[in-house]
Amino acid sequence: MSGSNGGQTGRVSIIGLGPGDACYLTPAAQAALDEATDLIGYFPYVARVPERNGLTRHASDNRVELDRSRHALELAAGGAHVAVVSGGDPGVFAMAAALFEALDNGPDHWRALPITVEPGITAMLAAAAKAGAPLGGDFCAISLSDNLKPWALVARRLEAALSADFAIALYNPISKARPHQLDDAFTLARAHRAPQTPVLLARAVGRTDESLRIVPLSEVRGAMADMSTLVLIGASTTRLIEKPDGTAWVYTPRFHAGLEGRPAEDGGK
Amino acid sequence: MSGSNGGQTGRVSIIGLGPGDACYLTPAAQAALDEATDLIGYFPYVARVPERNGLTRHASDNRVELDRSRHALELAAGGAHVAVVSGGDPGVFAMAAALFEALDNGPDHWRALPITVEPGITAMLAAAAKAGAPLGGDFCAISLSDNLKPWALVARRLEAALSADFAIALYNPISKARPHQLDDAFTLARAHRAPQTPVLLARAVGRTDESLRIVPLSEVRGAMADMSTLVLIGASTTRLIEKPDGTAWVYTPRFHAGLEGRPAEDGGK
Repeated sequence: MSGSNGGQTGRVSIIGLGPGDACYLTPAAQAALDEATDLIGYFPYVARVPERNGLTRHASDNRVELDRSRHALELAAGGAHVAVVSGGDPGVFAMAAALFEALDNGPDHWRALPITVEPGITAMLAAAAKAGAPLGGDFCAISLSDNLKPWALVARRLEAALSADFAIALYNPISKARPHQLDDAFTLARAHRAPQTPVLLARAVGRTDESLRIVPLSEVRGAMADMSTLVLIGASTTRLIEKPDGTAWVYTPRFHAGLEGRPAEDGGK
Repeated sequence: MSGSNGGQTGRVSIIGLGPGDACYLTPAAQAALDEATDLIGYFPYVARVPERNGLTRHASDNRVELDRSRHALELAAGGAHVAVVSGGDPGVFAMAAALFEALDNGPDHWRALPITVEPGITAMLAAAAKAGAPLGGDFCAISLSDNLKPWALVARRLEAALSADFAIALYNPISKARPHQLDDAFTLARAHRAPQTPVLLARAVGRTDESLRIVPLSEVRGAMADMSTLVLIGASTTRLIEKPDGTAWVYTPRFHAGLEGRPAEDGGK
């Protein structure tokens, strides 16, 4: 009876695996994995968890997050200890929102199930750490995918974040089905930010094929990124520090003098 | 010769300790701590790292981030393996930006020092995980402190984030020296969001005195928070799921229909 523990109370742990390398997996997340009878997630994330006796693996394809969530809740209702795994943090453009959506729309008895969320190092934190401190001031995280929201909303959020001078982390920047959004985002950014504004392209952070590029906004192109890339557009204050080896740190100073030439909505209190 | 390792190349690791409990400390951060000869940070964070032979502790008070950073770089230039510790993630309103600021403005030879940043679970991710998935859509992180930026800029960023319907995580929400900013932020939020919008007040997440409250925007007050509280204002779509025990999950669905009644800047592409 795969996944059942004989009628005892089941539960769901929604677990963040962090960036690829196991050195980023928290002990809390590891403990939750160790207690699981069933492992649910997108293929590459399930593949990261070592096989062991007593653990049934249920890997599925991308874009079936709700089916996967209902499956997890059904197994837990039957007594299983289910681990739902995401890369990075499960609460940031990953499985946690999908699971609670399934819970919200599912049968009442699911609401009594014990559910825990184990946070993880999300991509923007891992990318920022490798590059310096580009998120040192206020920042936003925006998914560029318009699968679940209209592009008009994405564009409005980008405009708002640009006009108020946030650093901006872009998740899901590009895919074969959505090749144009990232260049559209860069075009919007060029209307608000100086040409030399640093843009960080962090690919596969924490994996063996990790790569990091810092490109001026005037030169950055969507084709420099893929679905494994975290794109981070600096604020107006984001700066480079050149190193003797020719590479550079990128950071956003904590101090900000304000947005000169713009109205101070509250009278400059 | 405190902290020196006899003239060999020193280095700096800027380390995120995560929320209070050691179960959130990544193995990468633990390894960096294990290799340190000198430990630098704000008192309560230094206190979290166990004492051991070969580790010299340099704890300092709040608000001396630049002095502390210069001290770390000087020790490293002298051969020490310096661990600079922050709670949460060092890149989010913590020591990483201060250290790179000190590097940017320091002597040229510091730029050759090996520096690594070890990411950690930042407060908003830990708080969100305890409460459900309130950061399930696009979101912003804003520090309410006006020690390093004018309040007019904070207010402008809040307005931008509210008008574009981001979920908003507020760091440094309140202190004895800044008692009014959080109520001012709630007042701004009430002009944009419905009265029942969930506001999460997550205090001391991951510590023994952890507490979590979800309060409707119409009823939330600054006095419900202190410096150890992460405040999270939901988006217009953020919802509660009632549990049989009377508590509730809070989550932001992945789907967003768009901002009706507002202009679609790009023609609704």
